[in-house]
Amino acid sequence: MDRVSVRPLATAEIIAVGTEMLGTTRLDTNSLFLAGRLGDLGIDLRAKSVVADDRNRLRDVFLGAMSRADLVILTGGLGPTDDDLTREVVATALDRPLSEDPAIVAHIAARFERRGLRMPEVNRRQAMVPAGGIVLDNPNGTAPGLMIEHGDQVVVLLPGPPRELKPMFDRLRDSSLAQRTGGWRIYRRTLFIAGRGESHVEEVAQPIYSRWTGETPPIETTILAVPGQVELHLMLRSAQAKAAEDRLLAARDELINALKSDVFSVDGQSMEEVVGALLRERGMTISAAESCTGGLLLSRLTEVPGSSEYVLGGAVTYSNSLKTIFADVPAHLIEQYGAVSEPVAVALADGIRARTGASLGIGITGIAGPGGGSPEKPVGTVAIALTGNQQPARVRTVSLIGGRQMVRFQATQTALDMVRRLLLQL
Amino acid sequence: MDRVSVRPLATAEIIAVGTEMLGTTRLDTNSLFLAGRLGDLGIDLRAKSVVADDRNRLRDVFLGAMSRADLVILTGGLGPTDDDLTREVVATALDRPLSEDPAIVAHIAARFERRGLRMPEVNRRQAMVPAGGIVLDNPNGTAPGLMIEHGDQVVVLLPGPPRELKPMFDRLRDSSLAQRTGGWRIYRRTLFIAGRGESHVEEVAQPIYSRWTGETPPIETTILAVPGQVELHLMLRSAQAKAAEDRLLAARDELINALKSDVFSVDGQSMEEVVGALLRERGMTISAAESCTGGLLLSRLTEVPGSSEYVLGGAVTYSNSLKTIFADVPAHLIEQYGAVSEPVAVALADGIRARTGASLGIGITGIAGPGGGSPEKPVGTVAIALTGNQQPARVRTVSLIGGRQMVRFQATQTALDMVRRLLLQL
Repeated sequence: MDRVSVRPLATAEIIAVGTEMLGTTRLDTNSLFLAGRLGDLGIDLRAKSVVADDRNRLRDVFLGAMSRADLVILTGGLGPTDDDLTREVVATALDRPLSEDPAIVAHIAARFERRGLRMPEVNRRQAMVPAGGIVLDNPNGTAPGLMIEHGDQVVVLLPGPPRELKPMFDRLRDSSLAQRTGGWRIYRRTLFIAGRGESHVEEVAQPIYSRWTGETPPIETTILAVPGQVELHLMLRSAQAKAAEDRLLAARDELINALKSDVFSVDGQSMEEVVGALLRERGMTISAAESCTGGLLLSRLTEVPGSSEYVLGGAVTYSNSLKTIFADVPAHLIEQYGAVSEPVAVALADGIRARTGASLGIGITGIAGPGGGSPEKPVGTVAIALTGNQQPARVRTVSLIGGRQMVRFQATQTALDMVRRLLLQL
Repeated sequence: MDRVSVRPLATAEIIAVGTEMLGTTRLDTNSLFLAGRLGDLGIDLRAKSVVADDRNRLRDVFLGAMSRADLVILTGGLGPTDDDLTREVVATALDRPLSEDPAIVAHIAARFERRGLRMPEVNRRQAMVPAGGIVLDNPNGTAPGLMIEHGDQVVVLLPGPPRELKPMFDRLRDSSLAQRTGGWRIYRRTLFIAGRGESHVEEVAQPIYSRWTGETPPIETTILAVPGQVELHLMLRSAQAKAAEDRLLAARDELINALKSDVFSVDGQSMEEVVGALLRERGMTISAAESCTGGLLLSRLTEVPGSSEYVLGGAVTYSNSLKTIFADVPAHLIEQYGAVSEPVAVALADGIRARTGASLGIGITGIAGPGGGSPEKPVGTVAIALTGNQQPARVRTVSLIGGRQMVRFQATQTALDMVRRLLLQL
């Protein structure tokens, strides 16, 4: 095939073959690896499927992918048994007759011999190659892979086990695929946002990013709400690394200008990592007294390696008496305002800070549900206070929605975001 | 539609919509839940796909699924923003015009109002319903789901967040899908095991469950190791509910007889739920002083609704001085044995129990890594103590493997299992 005339590979789809990946426990994780490798090559992964070991369905899904994508990668179904259908289905669908490759038979037989075994007859099936197919050696297993150049398109068949698939794909990338992408790559930037809902981020961001879709090359933007944060994913396909990076940085900065300090992370760092880095930079320490979050805030902070530098610890003051025992909250304050109240949150923060000697103290008290709510203080009501040894107390009462777990997580996210916003001003 | 004449739902395909699931980190985990639910209904999941937010490709993949499956479930892409295309693509592909449902607008507006917010205009998009579509209420979010009966086929649209999708699917199963599957169902029982590795469970269980595969109907058994526990999943396909349930209960009891108190849960309850129920039954309370686990133990215990009945709270004593301040650990003990040692773990447990007045106290101190290890005490070394006001102290030092998160989780799992075994003897 004349390489000069062929269209570069721009889009890909992946098909994982195997009924075992349609149950309740196993996912196709090969596609994560392949997505990364394709991204590096600037090949845009547009869809992926898992299909049962079912001839007609596999043929149909494969032909669907061939009608849309430049590169179709099939993983799995290359074994020696009856339900390994990939090779045969692809050959039939592309109208390329299969014939036995004696070199593969010899290779498989040698593998068995090295283990003192004779090759079972069924393994001959793995030596069948569609007309025009290029055999990809498998140093870690019996199933060879296949590459078929079909017009301008490329079809790749790889075995399912990750330790076989990964080195085979990388060798194929270096030997063939990289020459077929014309230097195009996908560049990405991500922004994480706190303190605004998805629709409110959209209202600010959409007028900005909608302009980018008309540019050459266009920037594609995806907006995504996950618990505690909204994410903006920017993506640009380009053959020029520097220009692409510069463009994405400018685009990112435009969004930061509009969303300001609501943007808490531009490099994928989690809220607890961002807060940890700010504390470390400023040489400050933190402690917390948690009621409804029951240790989740401190647990998140200490999930970060090296957090012992800035997390001193704190208390889980689930019962009222512990609020007094560990954080010196005056009992009359609880009686007067209730355990879930801003005065108690501030007293928790102040008390734990004084007890531990930390620069900052957090107090959280609320109703995580499902029980414990009242008309005045429904489930989801959480009072959060932040005090510093040189800062006036900041305190908020939030109404969080969702189940117990969600309320607890969002309460800790709000508390961490309060710490972040304070630290940005210091 | 006349229910009597329609073909039962036998096969299904799932389409997850969202470019973010085509990257290198995120997988579509909703399909695992849906696979289980479909399996229970005797509906055969034959393929699943993830498709980018790309109108043409989604349309094409959707029509492909419609050409093969009785039931097509689409998840995600029901949000209020520009890249949420599912509703529109399905409506167009099925030639069913969209119109705004005022009841949905009112419902969404009310959700915003409850949080003191005005509904952004973009959210109206979520109120568009294709002709003939049945709206599925979403108690946990703004995006309603949709069910469309299209000839003999059923199309279901569900929002992507698992906590929204799961209850919506279960309600739909009970109200509609279950009547469309002809009575066959899959029955399941699960045992969770702690304190034994996978191969040691297998040694005991395999001779028992291997006999069941020859029965009519056969029981299929799967053994699965996940962090902190080994799981045995029993599965039986039957059209007779009572006979199936009885057979599975007898099978389960045979395994419990063999594995004894290592079986900690037979109904899917987590370790923290089991421990919580035992504490409640015995009218006992618990507290903890956590060092390397940084609040994760208390956070897990308090994740359970109603845990304030038996969790008093405790302390996160990350720094050495807090071990003394909050749990009265004598400083000389830390100097003599080191912070990660059995004497310090016992002192933490005793100290926190005395301070809080709980019936039981837990002390955890260890090296979660990646830093902080030494030849004598490598990363993963954790000392765990449990003391009671009427029980002698129990203490263990474990060597846990895996990254920081894994070490922390397994340390809390071991601690909870120590509590469980003690409570079983009381």
